[in-house]
Amino acid sequence: MSASPEGANVFFVLLGAILVFAMHGGFAFLEVGSVRHKNQVNALVKILVDFALSTLAYFVIGYTIAYGATFFQSAATLSGDGGTFLPQGLTLVKFFFLTTFAAAIPAIISGGIAERMKFLPQCIATLVLVGLAYPIFEGIAWNGNYGFQSFIESTFGAPFHDFAGSVVVHAVGGWIALGAVLHLGPRLGRYTKEGKAIGIPPSSLPWLALGSWLLCVGWFGFNVMTAGSLDAVSGLVALNSLMAMVGGILVALVVGRNDPGFVHNGALAGLVAVCAGSDVMHPLGSLVVGGVAGAIFVKGFEYCQLKLKIDDVLGVWPLHGICGAWGGIAAGIFGLEALGGIGGISFGAQFFGTLAGVVYAFAIGYLVYGVLKKTQGIRLTADEERRGADLSIHKISASPEHDIGR
Amino acid sequence: MSASPEGANVFFVLLGAILVFAMHGGFAFLEVGSVRHKNQVNALVKILVDFALSTLAYFVIGYTIAYGATFFQSAATLSGDGGTFLPQGLTLVKFFFLTTFAAAIPAIISGGIAERMKFLPQCIATLVLVGLAYPIFEGIAWNGNYGFQSFIESTFGAPFHDFAGSVVVHAVGGWIALGAVLHLGPRLGRYTKEGKAIGIPPSSLPWLALGSWLLCVGWFGFNVMTAGSLDAVSGLVALNSLMAMVGGILVALVVGRNDPGFVHNGALAGLVAVCAGSDVMHPLGSLVVGGVAGAIFVKGFEYCQLKLKIDDVLGVWPLHGICGAWGGIAAGIFGLEALGGIGGISFGAQFFGTLAGVVYAFAIGYLVYGVLKKTQGIRLTADEERRGADLSIHKISASPEHDIGR
Amino acid sequence: MSASPEGANVFFVLLGAILVFAMHGGFAFLEVGSVRHKNQVNALVKILVDFALSTLAYFVIGYTIAYGATFFQSAATLSGDGGTFLPQGLTLVKFFFLTTFAAAIPAIISGGIAERMKFLPQCIATLVLVGLAYPIFEGIAWNGNYGFQSFIESTFGAPFHDFAGSVVVHAVGGWIALGAVLHLGPRLGRYTKEGKAIGIPPSSLPWLALGSWLLCVGWFGFNVMTAGSLDAVSGLVALNSLMAMVGGILVALVVGRNDPGFVHNGALAGLVAVCAGSDVMHPLGSLVVGGVAGAIFVKGFEYCQLKLKIDDVLGVWPLHGICGAWGGIAAGIFGLEALGGIGGISFGAQFFGTLAGVVYAFAIGYLVYGVLKKTQGIRLTADEERRGADLSIHKISASPEHDIGR
Repeated sequence: MSASPEGANVFFVLLGAILVFAMHGGFAFLEVGSVRHKNQVNALVKILVDFALSTLAYFVIGYTIAYGATFFQSAATLSGDGGTFLPQGLTLVKFFFLTTFAAAIPAIISGGIAERMKFLPQCIATLVLVGLAYPIFEGIAWNGNYGFQSFIESTFGAPFHDFAGSVVVHAVGGWIALGAVLHLGPRLGRYTKEGKAIGIPPSSLPWLALGSWLLCVGWFGFNVMTAGSLDAVSGLVALNSLMAMVGGILVALVVGRNDPGFVHNGALAGLVAVCAGSDVMHPLGSLVVGGVAGAIFVKGFEYCQLKLKIDDVLGVWPLHGICGAWGGIAAGIFGLEALGGIGGISFGAQFFGTLAGVVYAFAIGYLVYGVLKKTQGIRLTADEERRGADLSIHKISASPEHDIGR
Repeated sequence: MSASPEGANVFFVLLGAILVFAMHGGFAFLEVGSVRHKNQVNALVKILVDFALSTLAYFVIGYTIAYGATFFQSAATLSGDGGTFLPQGLTLVKFFFLTTFAAAIPAIISGGIAERMKFLPQCIATLVLVGLAYPIFEGIAWNGNYGFQSFIESTFGAPFHDFAGSVVVHAVGGWIALGAVLHLGPRLGRYTKEGKAIGIPPSSLPWLALGSWLLCVGWFGFNVMTAGSLDAVSGLVALNSLMAMVGGILVALVVGRNDPGFVHNGALAGLVAVCAGSDVMHPLGSLVVGGVAGAIFVKGFEYCQLKLKIDDVLGVWPLHGICGAWGGIAAGIFGLEALGGIGGISFGAQFFGTLAGVVYAFAIGYLVYGVLKKTQGIRLTADEERRGADLSIHKISASPEHDIGR
Repeated sequence: MSASPEGANVFFVLLGAILVFAMHGGFAFLEVGSVRHKNQVNALVKILVDFALSTLAYFVIGYTIAYGATFFQSAATLSGDGGTFLPQGLTLVKFFFLTTFAAAIPAIISGGIAERMKFLPQCIATLVLVGLAYPIFEGIAWNGNYGFQSFIESTFGAPFHDFAGSVVVHAVGGWIALGAVLHLGPRLGRYTKEGKAIGIPPSSLPWLALGSWLLCVGWFGFNVMTAGSLDAVSGLVALNSLMAMVGGILVALVVGRNDPGFVHNGALAGLVAVCAGSDVMHPLGSLVVGGVAGAIFVKGFEYCQLKLKIDDVLGVWPLHGICGAWGGIAAGIFGLEALGGIGGISFGAQFFGTLAGVVYAFAIGYLVYGVLKKTQGIRLTADEERRGADLSIHKISASPEHDIGR
């Protein structure tokens, strides 16, 4: 190994960034499989373009809001001036890693607004959310900005603990998505005039499953590499992530009565919920947290769709929003030493911090998509929606040879 | 780098675990592409649920049987008490890594029993196999349990060498699968009354190929990270794995007359065979070992299906069972210094150890699935099988929009 | 960490090799999605077999041509004799890593010659190109062979700088492909007798997108691990790769008018172009370089197909050939300190080195495929082409169950 630890840490954080970047492919294919054939291309393009716009917005302003550094300096300085910028470009791979987190916000929203959202307003929303809204809360929770964490700590005896982002990333993304979905309204034909729900079948379980697999695999980078350095890496985080995923799978299997969509999303529900406390909970605690998340997702999805009549296509509000909030709170329970955890957390801090994230995100989501709706409209016309976002926006279907040829 | 090596080793072993975890996605998609459309969903759910159940069984009892440690201690202790548990949770990522190996047992079996097996009995089999049967042999071969290795060493001058599991994982999985497939019997319509084989075409070569690609990519983690630490890592293992894969591809191409299923499975055959001796063979030896495995798979698959009339759907017995046994024995040939190898191995030890694994596994497989067959039945009804496992078990097909709407 | 750095470097370079190996899956699925259904199987087999043949050719002779070492020595020597071969098999994983680069040459060509090329001549071309043609230029550019770099340096004040292969890999591959495509001629029905282009629709955007995703994810290994050791790793390379990809996506989106094929290939165009200067350019420079590449690809693809009437199916000449050359030259502009770069490069050296690569590659491609055309023919018969390469060469289609009629 080199005399200095930076090279190894560059490698470590880079692998995290690569794994979470691959998760964005997972978001794309999860949506490809969950929507109808006529909206598959749009799912693919939306996720990739949202990722690109997120990178730009976070590079230009977002990262500066959260962490204060700016990249408008020479490449030599950026690569390591010994001050703000760590040697061998370590700061730059940390930026890359955090960019992949920030870009998860529009990727989460994308699944909720699928099949009927216009393209350009979503691009604008991405720039605003990743450039401003997300980094403000990120800086509050993870960089001690604006004294929020000091307040929590002095009030509850411990700061709000969200190790890998159950709240900062997932709950925030999921509750913004709720705001967007409420403004957007359900897809044509989703509910009858009498309010009866009519099932809209997904196009492809294999593509849905591939998306889920990519997300599950990358998630171990999402959680473990959050440590940021090899000195701080903890195998406990990896094992807890595994156990929560397992809990989510098995409970979703039983509660969801063998439904493949529930099983594959159950894995994700467990992983969403474990992020916050993955460094402080016991593996068996993580199993429970993930299992509860699996049940929350199945029941939450059905309640949201059938009772509340909110047409959140992939169920991103229950999956990321509610399971993320559950994860933030659960860290305050299963992280306790009394339950085999590492301790150093406070239930009150977790509850309050989670609540703050949820309220902030829902308000932002409702505001941003509300303004976009007023100013330029966010929804495809009924004709465009019936034709599908693929032909309407991208002038091509997902299987051109087949679709043209018949 | 940190003063202590544990952080770097946590990273190293974790990457192995992530790569082998991704292989389970590969098992799933290999089966999705190889079975008929009506059984694709079942393939996906089966692999994911088997993985989850394997993790539970191995966590609660399996790992303890093989290595003696138990996880029913506080998270702080598990993260590193300086005794049983190494610092920074290194022991926990080693558990994660080995879990992904253990879970390969049901993933291998899954391909043999596809398209006609009931769901619940397979879950029970997974718990028994991963919780008990596999870790008993694993502990014998890899942890010196029960004096088997001492006996081999005193008899043959060297212990049974199975570096990354040609026998411990693959042959054991493949021979258990043979027991299961014999009890299950062929799919409806696979053979006429006169015993003539009728081809059942696979659904999708792209999905089959994706499965194979995921397996090939992850396999480098399977083999290299078995070293367990950066002090012990060997680039020879990586190169030997590459060469064996190449041998498997090219020989399967020729012997299999350009058939894509044989080419993609030929890569896997080479990789199965190289595991045992990947740390002691010469790259050219590995090329030969992989090439022979490619031929074994193609000929073994045809012999099994057409002559023996064993309906092992994905050919997991020839692929993992026979090629795995070949790998165990081949390490005793191509590992010899006379053939450019590193040496320190014994043909007798390899032959005897491999034979022990094969006999043990076949007996276990025949017993476990025999008991399940007697007590609750293991096979779908003829109606369920004709309808497909997807609709029969999961109440949904792989392409719901297409299958419902047209 | 271990006392010696070799173990960590083995790990580092191995991960690069694994990531670039996974890119070959990306090449395969990009082609699967871009060609018609009747040629999907051929795309899969071709890429895998080309990879296997490339490994053999590079192992036996190619690596020796470029770097002088030969592997015909004992496994113990190969694992680290302290001389030519570094400890813990570090040299062997470097070989593995460089093999995945060499094998990119036929993988690039494959996309250009799709849907009409015979199988065996392509295998021969692969052996010649990866065994001889590529390593000659590789050794010239990366190992100082034949005094070319000394000449450039004494003439222009700096050697030709191609950090990760915009020219050595991509331009060389793309310009060889142009030679092949010219000899092969357009697919049947691609142009009318009057020379009007008739669109041939791709089979599947999801498979195309999966290929692009695999390539994008693996590319970070392609670029970053080129450093070869943790002492030399630079986070700047990762960030520059990210920014160039983003530039390629966004410009291709706009110039390509929301077309999904352009967006996904735009990401690749940016990544092709950034390789050469990824270690010396500023992130904003990389954004521009990638953006220009995105425009080059879209316009170049249309110009090539519609004006030049060259039926380069996946557009590998504009993508790898032209964007690669642009990347080689761009490093001489955006690497300058005046533009925020690290400096140490020369525009003249970049221009001359790039030109040399392009001329060399086109000549080689035209020669090799010309000789093959004369001696044994390179094109399927018209009947075979109409039937499709899958049934003609591999005797099976991509969806056998569906295509056979069940």
